[in-house]
Amino acid sequence: MDKILVFGHKSPDTDAVTSAISFSYLQNQLGLDTEAVALGEIGEETTFALNYFNVNKPRVVTTVSNEVKQVMLVDHNESQQSVEDIEKVEVLSVVDHHRIANFQTANPLYYRAEPVGCTNTIILKLYKEHGVTVPKDIAGIMLSAIISDTLLLKSPTCTDIDIASAKELAEIAGVDLENYGIELLKSGTKTSDKSAED
Amino acid sequence: MDKILVFGHKSPDTDAVTSAISFSYLQNQLGLDTEAVALGEIGEETTFALNYFNVNKPRVVTTVSNEVKQVMLVDHNESQQSVEDIEKVEVLSVVDHHRIANFQTANPLYYRAEPVGCTNTIILKLYKEHGVTVPKDIAGIMLSAIISDTLLLKSPTCTDIDIASAKELAEIAGVDLENYGIELLKSGTKTSDKSAED
Ligand SMILES: [Mn+2]
Ligand SMILES: [Mn+2]
Ligand SMILES: [Mn+2]
Ligand SMILES: [Mn+2]
Repeated sequence: MDKILVFGHKSPDTDAVTSAISFSYLQNQLGLDTEAVALGEIGEETTFALNYFNVNKPRVVTTVSNEVKQVMLVDHNESQQSVEDIEKVEVLSVVDHHRIANFQTANPLYYRAEPVGCTNTIILKLYKEHGVTVPKDIAGIMLSAIISDTLLLKSPTCTDIDIASAKELAEIAGVDLENYGIELLKSGTKTSDKSAED
Repeated sequence: MDKILVFGHKSPDTDAVTSAISFSYLQNQLGLDTEAVALGEIGEETTFALNYFNVNKPRVVTTVSNEVKQVMLVDHNESQQSVEDIEKVEVLSVVDHHRIANFQTANPLYYRAEPVGCTNTIILKLYKEHGVTVPKDIAGIMLSAIISDTLLLKSPTCTDIDIASAKELAEIAGVDLENYGIELLKSGTKTSDKSAED
């Protein structure tokens, strides 16, 4: 079985990095051989979250066709936000919460988008649909992404499902949502240029 | 609440027509006000299926922006296969089993695609995810679409999930899968130009 790379968008934010990790873990539990990678330097907020929950930083890549034939995209679909050689590989699946544009495939694929505040909110649903338990460390970084994308559940993009997912993940991760959320957002303020759109 | 139209592709086949009906029924159960319509004359095979299970033929439309602001697409996504004024309405959701191309939105949406043999196979999953019971008549036309798209479960596009779904729907519809399947496919042979790609 050939390896599949999973990645979020360029200039990765916390959702892009952690949704690659959480989706890759799910796919591996389902029997595939996938690896989460990042398309750029991992920022301070994301580093804080990964360290807090003892999750390894993913490898940073700039091309993928030199090592795999197939990929899975998370937290983006537009080709200009993706890896530079995206045209040279097959996109097997997309999990995303953005509009669809500048995206096309030659073959049918698995595409899961919902108008919610965070890709990890959708991925939590997928864990449940497949009956896969979310490990404590993965729950922590998924929670971090929801906090990051919804600015601690206060962005206009935040939905009831994001709020319920955040509460559930905080429980699994064993952290207080408010306290951890403020700590996480503070960790990113030095360098952040985040928008509620991410 | 404004009405939403649900439709499959132009030159509608059995999956295009019946997935609009089955998806519209699901959305209405979930509280929306939707109507299934068709983008062209309904063929003999589809007419046979609708008559067999006593389901009304949907209205045929050529434009939609004259009556609604929002639509839901089934069994297609490419704009050239869709209604001619698709650019003038908002696509709220897509359920499909084809490649993605020539499709873009201004806003986030609900998009559900899987590489299976028939849109109604995905819609059956959605009924289950939402805990909505499939009525006998709807089960019959959903089954008809799977038979039609997979040439009675024999096409290269047919997956294990399509086969399991067909068996389950035949049970609910109260028909023998093989016997009904052959009758259905025969009904369409006079005028059909179907391919396994539909
Ligand atoms: Mn995101
Ligand atoms: Mn993002
Ligand atoms: Mn179809
Ligand atoms: Mn079709």
